Parts: sequence; C-alpha cells; structure tokens
Amino acid sequence: MPNPTAAMLVIGDEILSGRTRDSNMNHLARRLTEAGIDLREARMVADDAGEIVAALNALRARYTYVFTSGGIGPTHDDITADCVAQAFGVGIDVREDARAILATNYRNPETELNAARLRMARIPDGADLIDNPVSKAPGFRIGNVHVMAGVPAVFEAMVEGVLPTLTGGAPLRSHSLRVFLPEGTVAAPLGEIAAANPDVAIGSYPFQREGRFGCTLVARAQDTDRLGAVAAEIRAMAEALGATDILETPPDAALA
Amino acid sequence: MPNPTAAMLVIGDEILSGRTRDSNMNHLARRLTEAGIDLREARMVADDAGEIVAALNALRARYTYVFTSGGIGPTHDDITADCVAQAFGVGIDVREDARAILATNYRNPETELNAARLRMARIPDGADLIDNPVSKAPGFRIGNVHVMAGVPAVFEAMVEGVLPTLTGGAPLRSHSLRVFLPEGTVAAPLGEIAAANPDVAIGSYPFQREGRFGCTLVARAQDTDRLGAVAAEIRAMAEALGATDILETPPDAALA
Repeated sequence: MPNPTAAMLVIGDEILSGRTRDSNMNHLARRLTEAGIDLREARMVADDAGEIVAALNALRARYTYVFTSGGIGPTHDDITADCVAQAFGVGIDVREDARAILATNYRNPETELNAARLRMARIPDGADLIDNPVSKAPGFRIGNVHVMAGVPAVFEAMVEGVLPTLTGGAPLRSHSLRVFLPEGTVAAPLGEIAAANPDVAIGSYPFQREGRFGCTLVARAQDTDRLGAVAAEIRAMAEALGATDILETPPDAALA
Repeated sequence: MPNPTAAMLVIGDEILSGRTRDSNMNHLARRLTEAGIDLREARMVADDAGEIVAALNALRARYTYVFTSGGIGPTHDDITADCVAQAFGVGIDVREDARAILATNYRNPETELNAARLRMARIPDGADLIDNPVSKAPGFRIGNVHVMAGVPAVFEAMVEGVLPTLTGGAPLRSHSLRVFLPEGTVAAPLGEIAAANPDVAIGSYPFQREGRFGCTLVARAQDTDRLGAVAAEIRAMAEALGATDILETPPDAALA
C-alpha cells in the first residue's frame, strides 16, 4: 500500500520578504519521513486571505494530510484561522475550551486575557484543538488540515502532539555514500544502476570540500534489503572508478 | 505602478525528505525585496516531471518572473531542463555555445566532457544562457522563467547575474521596532494603527529572550516618509504602554 501523502503551507509576509528564514518545513519533512508519510509539496504564501484559502483548498483536496504554520497569534495580521474556516465553509467563533486554556495562561494584570488574546480562542466549527505545551494558545485540526504556530519551538511541539494521531506508512530509509569523485564522472554508471533498480530512488548531491570535488550518493527505499543491495552496487561502481575514502552511512544513521 | 511580481520553484527530493535545508528561497527573497520585485509565492516539489511541469505552468502564467533552483546537473535525477522544455512546448538539445563553455571547464582526463556532463549543455530552444562563474555549467532563461542551480554558491552567483536583466520596482522598505511587551498587549492598538494606515503593511513577530516576552513590530512600505510617520505612531503606542528599551531599526538598516 502506498504511503500517506502530505503537503505543507507556510504562511507569512516575513517569509516571502526574506526577513525570516523558515525552518518549520525542514523540521516537518524530517519527522514525516521518519513516520512513513511522504511530504510531496510545500508552498509559502503571504498574509493574504485569497491566497491562503486557494492554497488550502488546492492542497487539502490532493494530499492525505496538510500542515500549516503561521498566522494564529493575537495581532491583526494573524488571519489563518479565519481563512481555514472560509476554505471549509464553516463558521468560526471563540470556543469555550480554547478560552479556558488561554484563561489559565493569561491571568496577570500585564498579560490579561484581553480581546486581542481572545482571538487565539477563535476556532472553526468542528475542529479539534492541538495542544501547545510551550505557550498555551492552541492550534487545531479540521478535516485533514493541521493548523499550527509559526514560532519554531511552538510548531515543533505541536508536531510532536499531532504525529501520534496520524496514520503513518513504511518509513523511507536511506543509505548514503560520500564519494570523492566529480559528479559528472559517476553520472553515467549511476544512471545505469538507477534504471536497473526502479524501486530504489537514487539522488546525487555534489559538493566541493577543501578543493576536492565529490558527491553524496543517496539511495532511498522502504525495503532495507533492497537498499543494501543497491548501496553495494553503488559502492562497487565508485571503487571501480578509483574512489578510496568512501564514507558510507547506512539506514539507521541516515536521513532520507 | 505596482511592483513586478515573482514566484520561486525549489526542485528536489532531498528538500522534501528533509535531508537538505533549502537556503536559496530566503536568499532570493532578500535580493528581490531590495530590487522592488514582490516575491508572492514559493513552491517546493520533488524530482517528478509531472509535478515540475504543472508547477512551472501555474506560476509562469501568474507572476512577472519565475525562478527555479535545482535539477540541472549531470545525473539521471536532473530533469529540470527537460521539464521546462515540456512546459513551454519547445524542443531541447545540446547547444553549441553551452557545449563550448563546458569544454573549457572539462578538459582533464579525470573530468572529461563525457556524455553525462554534456547533458548540462542541453538547453530548451529559444532560451538565453545564464552565466555560472562558479562551476561553468550554465543556467538559462526562457520566457519569464529563470532556471538556476541548486548548489547555493552557484544559485547565488546566478542570481547576481540575472538581477540586472530584470525590471525592478520601488524597493519595499521596512522600519522595525523591537519592543519588550507581550504581543497580546500591543495587538489591539497595533491593529488600530494598521487599520488607519492601509498603505503601510504592519507585521508583528513575537519572541522570548532571557525570560522576557517581546515582539518585533515591522512596518513595510515603499514610501519612506509614510514609513517614518507610521513607525513614530508605533513607538508612541509602545511607550504609552510602558515600553522603555525600544530598539528601532530604520529603513536603511532593515530588511523588509
């Protein structure tokens, strides 16, 4: 059975202006890969309701799971929850369980639960809350869409809460070989190995280190036996081309 | 006149598996913002021809400029050039000027211009080459699509070559104020300032530092006079709420 699929939607003007470097997509990608869920696509859009709604509807129709980051805080530019409600065609209002969570956190005079903070308790009808162990204000899940915070520490904590609720598949394993041969030298025999083993995805990532050209050759598959067999073919190919100091990273230590 | 718009397409299995952390999108975002070109959307897709072609056609129809990174090397998983030709419905073959560039670079026995490396001279019909001062193998531009390498040093060098060929607009300037007040405390008055100044985009980015909550309030606009006026309003608002050590970063020093 093929693995479940996923897409990520990163929301925020600050990402597209370059002010903020997104780190949530990479974090989610790693965790999903380990869980056997194939992240197929990521999109980044600005704080623009039309763009957010259109992207949500395109992605949720197409993939098993969708994950969003950003735009669920208390300020005027936090419009993600409203956009999700609009995309699903449901209402949105302050919900008592979300309000109760915020009330336990915002109870000092300088951080009272004012109208702005109460915006963070506005949850689309029919959604389930996602726990926020870092700063309390919850995310939520509706249908196959998981709405999470943009602040990395909060996003990452929410991902850990969400993962056990997802149906995973067979984790994609990888076996990588760092070879000090120019990529163009290994390209032809590597392509032959790839063509002969269509069940194993093979990637090549060139680098230059201390004046030497090399490439990291990565085989990816769910089946570790097949992975080992193809890695052995790649190693034999590189050795036949004269590579000596091959650094091999088998599945348990590698990330796909 | 509104600024030209742009989208970026990041191509590569290794991005979506989490193995590689993309840095090209952030770099491009910063350079386009400085040039007055509005990056409106970014997408990341795998080394899958159908996905790449569909994304290319969606983005090139919608934005002034499209920029891609990844998939133009010599190995079997480098399929971007073919996908671009397919998206534009044009032929693709080894082109003499591109072959000549590669021939000057690959002339030692251990790095001869073999068939795999020659793949990097396959250029869609009607495209212009983009110079690669780092490792020679060129990128190319066809229509409004700029096809560049995934290796960051090469991507960044290609961007510098491409920028002077683009029609820029009025750079988006920003004025930021770091305020040690919780975001939920400034949210309501900040929203009023945003509503009263629709020509200036205002964002709020919360942080926690040494146990204190704060937020960076960022005003963005092309007009520096308007920017200064709104920044002064934000500062007065924060001071009225008791903020003392406001760190203000005016347009010349800030990135939007």
